Amino acid sequence: PAPVRCAFEFRPADGAASPRYRIDIVRMRVISEFCLKRQVHFYETDAAGIVHFSVFFRYVEEAEHAMWRAAGLSIAPPNASVGFPRVAANFDFLRPLYFEDEFEVHLRITRKSSRSLSYGATIEKDGNALARGTLTIACVQKLAGGPMQSATIPAEIANAFEVATPEAVKG
Amino acid sequence: PAPVRCAFEFRPADGAASPRYRIDIVRMRVISEFCLKRQVHFYETDAAGIVHFSVFFRYVEEAEHAMWRAAGLSIAPPNASVGFPRVAANFDFLRPLYFEDEFEVHLRITRKSSRSLSYGATIEKDGNALARGTLTIACVQKLAGGPMQSATIPAEIANAFEVATPEAVKG
Amino acid sequence: PAPVRCAFEFRPADGAASPRYRIDIVRMRVISEFCLKRQVHFYETDAAGIVHFSVFFRYVEEAEHAMWRAAGLSIAPPNASVGFPRVAANFDFLRPLYFEDEFEVHLRITRKSSRSLSYGATIEKDGNALARGTLTIACVQKLAGGPMQSATIPAEIANAFEVATPEAVKG
Amino acid sequence: PAPVRCAFEFRPADGAASPRYRIDIVRMRVISEFCLKRQVHFYETDAAGIVHFSVFFRYVEEAEHAMWRAAGLSIAPPNASVGFPRVAANFDFLRPLYFEDEFEVHLRITRKSSRSLSYGATIEKDGNALARGTLTIACVQKLAGGPMQSATIPAEIANAFEVATPEAVKG
Repeated sequence: PAPVRCAFEFRPADGAASPRYRIDIVRMRVISEFCLKRQVHFYETDAAGIVHFSVFFRYVEEAEHAMWRAAGLSIAPPNASVGFPRVAANFDFLRPLYFEDEFEVHLRITRKSSRSLSYGATIEKDGNALARGTLTIACVQKLAGGPMQSATIPAEIANAFEVATPEAVKG
Repeated sequence: PAPVRCAFEFRPADGAASPRYRIDIVRMRVISEFCLKRQVHFYETDAAGIVHFSVFFRYVEEAEHAMWRAAGLSIAPPNASVGFPRVAANFDFLRPLYFEDEFEVHLRITRKSSRSLSYGATIEKDGNALARGTLTIACVQKLAGGPMQSATIPAEIANAFEVATPEAVKG
Repeated sequence: PAPVRCAFEFRPADGAASPRYRIDIVRMRVISEFCLKRQVHFYETDAAGIVHFSVFFRYVEEAEHAMWRAAGLSIAPPNASVGFPRVAANFDFLRPLYFEDEFEVHLRITRKSSRSLSYGATIEKDGNALARGTLTIACVQKLAGGPMQSATIPAEIANAFEVATPEAVKG
Repeated sequence: PAPVRCAFEFRPADGAASPRYRIDIVRMRVISEFCLKRQVHFYETDAAGIVHFSVFFRYVEEAEHAMWRAAGLSIAPPNASVGFPRVAANFDFLRPLYFEDEFEVHLRITRKSSRSLSYGATIEKDGNALARGTLTIACVQKLAGGPMQSATIPAEIANAFEVATPEAVKG
């Protein structure tokens, strides 16, 4: 699902070879939900025989980054001027995951502001919820050597995502 | 800080060689707070140059297991009849951690019931809080091949921990 | 590519309802090579901006376990009587892998004895080798509470794999 | 064990306030061996009940970075002009490590050239070798956006390390 790109060039009346203006339009696919299917790797299990709880947070991030790719974006492209550190994360664990279990990460955008995004996540196996959590990320400017500074989410990213409708919540 | 152990034997009046009763008393160190000092390993960082957020949950668990050892216990001894899966975990991330940063995990018991324990955790560097979170664990019976089943925390474990006092919270 | 299963029953001439013998035949797909396609996850990178070298060993294991599944097997099924600890592993790292890079793990069986299996592995991106390594696993019996003991690879597993031909090496 | 620093200033005969030359001498502690003591964390184990083999490579790196700190160095200081990617790593695994096992990583410098360093590593528990491996790192220049380029190890780093003597090998 790649973004549709088109470009317009406005040339001056005198027929000059080089255009005066060039406008690039990228029609993003607006996304509010995503589902990642996955299988448990052995190195994600622990001596209790189940997936270590810290790995569930990695599953959510994996789904998030795949969601951004589905929107034609990367959350950390080379030489990016902004980054998206995680500012809050939580999970309630209901049932364990085992080696080679096939499961799904259902991700939905639950809140969107000019500087942050929140996701709701459910880990499911065979239609049963195994864990429910949330993840909130913030946009920061990356200043070499200095501290992170809160920043506005660039328009091309903000326009790619919208909050999932309540109906989607029930579905 | 190993537990203090002592044993009494009650012998019958007839001078029999073998005692009638034997009472083992283990005076546990009752614990409600713990502080783990640590340094960031390189493999805990990510391409954003900071510790990956999922690793903070491992730091809390490390501190928890060290707290249990300080109480003379292991959270997962060989052939244990009960286990302690995590049922809820969350973190608010305030400031990042970098490679080789020296930091502390301050852990406090915030809730204790017959079947579960909750911890409050603060990650600190140079006296500043970098992240604040909670972790809740539940006691389950380990039945070979079957599902986990909720269980009462064994007395020797329950007696080793108590909820931190509000004063301790401020300290 | 599931194994083809068939069963024959030999009934006595007297027409008894229950068969005398039952033979189950599972025609395994014999496998000597496997290719896993994958994309780099963010949590697999480190502060140098590249995939941490320890993660390459996880990639090889991921490919190995997928190869076993392609042969209709699991390397660690529930209640297994044997296990397959790793006894040797090595990698030469030629070029780095970055976040979201799409790469392939080419795995080939290079040696097979009654008690161990060796794999050769190449990590490739866009047809270029990024790393080359080997992995050797041994079969052990799992004795509760005791040490691991060397064991013969069960026939249904041994029969599923064969050493890759030298031609395959060049290919 | 911080490096010993001293500085000499050579002033001109005319008694000018500012010195003509200034020489900074840092007497590094020259290091060829290091021992890291550690305890196994729960998240380092897998469903086989033992430390995952990929984690041994992290243990070696942990010991390496601690060795550099013991020499007064960091392997990845902020804004470093050179980096030290791993170019080869291997391990032979003899015996498993379990949760809460206390073990040692014995690290020795086995080879040193102008552009690379090799370490020999032994993981020991109670005086028994559990695993033996090697790690080779190379010095590269970090060019923003470009590929890594082989570089000479800076003198202050090269001078801090020397190859362990054969006697040390036996010890």
